[in-house]
Amino acid sequence: MASEFDLIARYFTRPAHRARLGVGDDCALLDVTPGCELAISTDMLVAGTHFFPDADPQRLGHKTLAVNLSDLAAMGAKPASALLSLALPAADEAWIAAFARGFFALADEHGVELVGGDTTRTPSGGTLTLTVTILGEVPASQAIRRSGAKAGDDIWVSNTLGDAALGLAVLQGKVNLEQSERYYCIQRLEMPAPRIALGLALRGIAHSMLDISDGLAGDLAHIARASGVSAQVDVDVLPLSPALRGVARELALQCALAGGDDYELCFTAAAERRTAVEAAGTAAGVSVTRIGSIVPAAAVPVRFVDGVGHELALRLGGYDHFGA
Amino acid sequence: MASEFDLIARYFTRPAHRARLGVGDDCALLDVTPGCELAISTDMLVAGTHFFPDADPQRLGHKTLAVNLSDLAAMGAKPASALLSLALPAADEAWIAAFARGFFALADEHGVELVGGDTTRTPSGGTLTLTVTILGEVPASQAIRRSGAKAGDDIWVSNTLGDAALGLAVLQGKVNLEQSERYYCIQRLEMPAPRIALGLALRGIAHSMLDISDGLAGDLAHIARASGVSAQVDVDVLPLSPALRGVARELALQCALAGGDDYELCFTAAAERRTAVEAAGTAAGVSVTRIGSIVPAAAVPVRFVDGVGHELALRLGGYDHFGA
Repeated sequence: MASEFDLIARYFTRPAHRARLGVGDDCALLDVTPGCELAISTDMLVAGTHFFPDADPQRLGHKTLAVNLSDLAAMGAKPASALLSLALPAADEAWIAAFARGFFALADEHGVELVGGDTTRTPSGGTLTLTVTILGEVPASQAIRRSGAKAGDDIWVSNTLGDAALGLAVLQGKVNLEQSERYYCIQRLEMPAPRIALGLALRGIAHSMLDISDGLAGDLAHIARASGVSAQVDVDVLPLSPALRGVARELALQCALAGGDDYELCFTAAAERRTAVEAAGTAAGVSVTRIGSIVPAAAVPVRFVDGVGHELALRLGGYDHFGA
Repeated sequence: MASEFDLIARYFTRPAHRARLGVGDDCALLDVTPGCELAISTDMLVAGTHFFPDADPQRLGHKTLAVNLSDLAAMGAKPASALLSLALPAADEAWIAAFARGFFALADEHGVELVGGDTTRTPSGGTLTLTVTILGEVPASQAIRRSGAKAGDDIWVSNTLGDAALGLAVLQGKVNLEQSERYYCIQRLEMPAPRIALGLALRGIAHSMLDISDGLAGDLAHIARASGVSAQVDVDVLPLSPALRGVARELALQCALAGGDDYELCFTAAAERRTAVEAAGTAAGVSVTRIGSIVPAAAVPVRFVDGVGHELALRLGGYDHFGA
């Protein structure tokens, strides 16, 4: 059986170009561009909680990095480096090779250098667990936080909402879709596209931003609470893909508002910056849709209304691993 | 049941003092001191592989951070920030509270700010997995790498070797020790002391350094290979605690040379810097012992000899999670 050190060397050690020192010592050594802050985040993916234990390893490699890149996008930060830790139930070389392919394809696309990590084996029957720490840079004081929303701001989201949740429902056998829509939704679930270019383009424009990982309802509430405001969303203008528009309205709204794993950006900007926001979307090659507005703090952090102002009766909540 | 967000907020969210932005947004934002490089490392601890599933959570909190701090110590870096990810089989609040106590006690001792992380639940029966990413700073070009050893260097280690491995043998019921030595060895296994002060004091003195996490034999071989040299160690001068000196020589050497989890520093320095090395140990409050010397590259990366020059016949290897 190949040793841990052999496997790491074969699949995860690449020469460092930007880093002072990459994989292979006790620490990696990085320079941070003068005038920039370091943006750093970590996400852990657990088999059976975040993905199916038999998930395709190449797609899993993509997604493991993508969800972390999405956190950089949500701050308007430029990706730089990553660390990857794997706890593996077995030293399955074909699995590791495919995982590395998916991981590095996305890393190369975004100029991310793998500078460190850890590979360990779980006891027999243990849980496959993946942790990525991602590092990026943002010019001092230009990061887009959750706490900057102002009453009067427009609320925007990128691309479409709820596709990943519908993809999950399909994989769980709860929903049947026509073949091409089935493929589309599963693709959205398994191969999320981190909105790095949009995040960068929104520096100096967006007042607040985050990525929608736990569903719009819960995530927008984070912006509202952090900013001391409330949000009002018009559910009739939510951007929905043809797949979502083809299912019952209640299911579509459930997916769009409470479904996790979209990794689209939700952000707020002053109403007079609408043209700038749309130009940022065009430059980044992703559609942006205005879905509501920020209002002074009210009884609830987020209100969902339909086109004629009626409050939505759906009971919604974001995904919470320890929730009831 | 408390929600994930509640648990994170209650036990792991503290106001950030040094960081621009701490826990609670998509990323943390950090400033790096001008003229410094960022040192970064990550270690994953898996129940059943790195610790017993019923390990005391407060001690586990200490050790989870300690093994990461040890990587900073091994570069001569000053600790700054950490991120902590937990995959928990259950939302056991008492366990989390005790873990946080152990973690933060050590973090406070070393001025480490927790700036981010992730908390997720494993499926039922899943494996408790902990990942820490640690960040520190080191003045540009002053980090002590593995690759700097030169023929003629002395080889040094801090404190004593093999205690943790003997502690593990005690816990596994393989060895019986008198009560106070039993306590001492288990303490060394469960509460390692990262040698941060020594690492800092050795800047400008040590040519190469690492921390002994997988046993001296394997780890010293890393220095030898990275530096293109070989090492010769006199096993009769290895620093051994009274507990190690009280067991059979073969067991003591097995623990000292191939036992993992010591988290002592192994480093090399020019022979004319012996006084400086000893002064660094004194300043850091930890003993340092000269155990051998670096020689030109030979057939094996590390040779172990006794006081009269006979090669050691023991078959030794460092710990490798995927090894045979």
